[in-house]
Amino acid sequence: MRRSERIVRLTRQLLDHPGQPLSLTEMAEEYDAAKSSLSEDLAIIRAVVEADGDGRLFTQTGAMGGVIYQPGIAEADADRFVNNAIERLSHGDRILPGGYLYMSDLLAEPDVLRKVGVLFAQRFAGEAPDVVLTVETKGIPLAVVTSQALNCPFLIARRDHRVTEGSSVSVNYVSGSDRRIQTMSLSRRTLKQGAKVLIVDDFMKAGGTVKAMKGLMGEFDALVVGVGIFMETAEPEDKLVSDYISLFSLAHMDEAIRRVVIEPGNYYS
Amino acid sequence: MRRSERIVRLTRQLLDHPGQPLSLTEMAEEYDAAKSSLSEDLAIIRAVVEADGDGRLFTQTGAMGGVIYQPGIAEADADRFVNNAIERLSHGDRILPGGYLYMSDLLAEPDVLRKVGVLFAQRFAGEAPDVVLTVETKGIPLAVVTSQALNCPFLIARRDHRVTEGSSVSVNYVSGSDRRIQTMSLSRRTLKQGAKVLIVDDFMKAGGTVKAMKGLMGEFDALVVGVGIFMETAEPEDKLVSDYISLFSLAHMDEAIRRVVIEPGNYYS
Repeated sequence: MRRSERIVRLTRQLLDHPGQPLSLTEMAEEYDAAKSSLSEDLAIIRAVVEADGDGRLFTQTGAMGGVIYQPGIAEADADRFVNNAIERLSHGDRILPGGYLYMSDLLAEPDVLRKVGVLFAQRFAGEAPDVVLTVETKGIPLAVVTSQALNCPFLIARRDHRVTEGSSVSVNYVSGSDRRIQTMSLSRRTLKQGAKVLIVDDFMKAGGTVKAMKGLMGEFDALVVGVGIFMETAEPEDKLVSDYISLFSLAHMDEAIRRVVIEPGNYYS
Repeated sequence: MRRSERIVRLTRQLLDHPGQPLSLTEMAEEYDAAKSSLSEDLAIIRAVVEADGDGRLFTQTGAMGGVIYQPGIAEADADRFVNNAIERLSHGDRILPGGYLYMSDLLAEPDVLRKVGVLFAQRFAGEAPDVVLTVETKGIPLAVVTSQALNCPFLIARRDHRVTEGSSVSVNYVSGSDRRIQTMSLSRRTLKQGAKVLIVDDFMKAGGTVKAMKGLMGEFDALVVGVGIFMETAEPEDKLVSDYISLFSLAHMDEAIRRVVIEPGNYYS
């Protein structure tokens, strides 16, 4: 196989398996190539990825070791992404009853959603989460793309414990914004004791829902290693949770004059 | 830039934008390279992708034209995937009340889920859907990965029309399996008239839910160009919809002796 062909294959293999160690020994066999040649190929790929600033290629040593590609977004691209999203979301006709913002169109676009997943993965990969957790419904797409970028599975807490998934653990909580008592539950067989969990959600006001997810993880003896929020609201300033990362902050929303002000979240500070 | 570096960049750019035309003219500017050199690079990439059988690289002519990467799965890999999934799903302890099967763990694994999205995309890319539609909750991850592989947005029909997304269109339907009357609704602003829609869902028994999604699309004057189901049940044989593709078929399930028989769906026939 020519070097250029091998580089195409290697690049694809790495990109298709983000966060997953690929063994140099196995690749050498698969490609019928010397390990030294593969190392040279990987050096070229690493140089490009690092020059572009949108990802990392690193080597894990040990028996389970290998080369790992961790997707990322270059700073300039992230800036462009944030500014573009702010511009698109800052429209009065996005105001929904109850202090919510219509964002479903944006979060349904493959490119936008993929970038959100990579931004969360880039930030939390170091915590090596075993699983990404969210609660239905709108958090699910975020959990899926973050799970893809981190190469770990995701879990969906259900709002309806009658859903038939075998025995489950439930927590009741009061939603910080509308003071209603709600239920959130998770199938008992889904999570191992001691698992490291990354929580993601699309929208956070007071933080009641995220706090409930943390409580639920407590019931499973799981460890929450991070919280990633797409859009937080500036008000109330005192949230029920601390230690979260937000991509955007809804600074101000005035339905009467149809004005929406969105700022970058604490991700970038 | 050396050819090998350019090939890494090109491969990444194509893989990160599946289904999206990349302009040769723009790439030539971005890479400061002659179009003829880029064409040679692309020929190498195409040769590898086609030799591996897991995707296609094709050229779209015209003003909006360019090079498009359409992800795919090689036949041998698809076979392996199907056999592995059947083995993992064919366990008595997966039987859930009401004739359902516990599949959430499998469909939450990034690799499995990504492959399902690529299989659907590979099958339906030719229909050029504008949007992927599903209904909450378990269909959502499938819609997200299919949307990623097709590079088109997705839509989530809600089961609760009180969800605040502005004015919505609702349909009532009788679920074929448990005879309850259910509601499904979609925000009015989400879909353009005449849009081509690919419906995906995780599980189909009689097909009442899919039929309702088709009815909902009728209300929007949208055109359903395909239906992709992860797991159908062999019974009832007479479904409420025809013209669907299933990846797997639940041929037999006996709770008493805890036996589950799964077969490949009609995707492969």
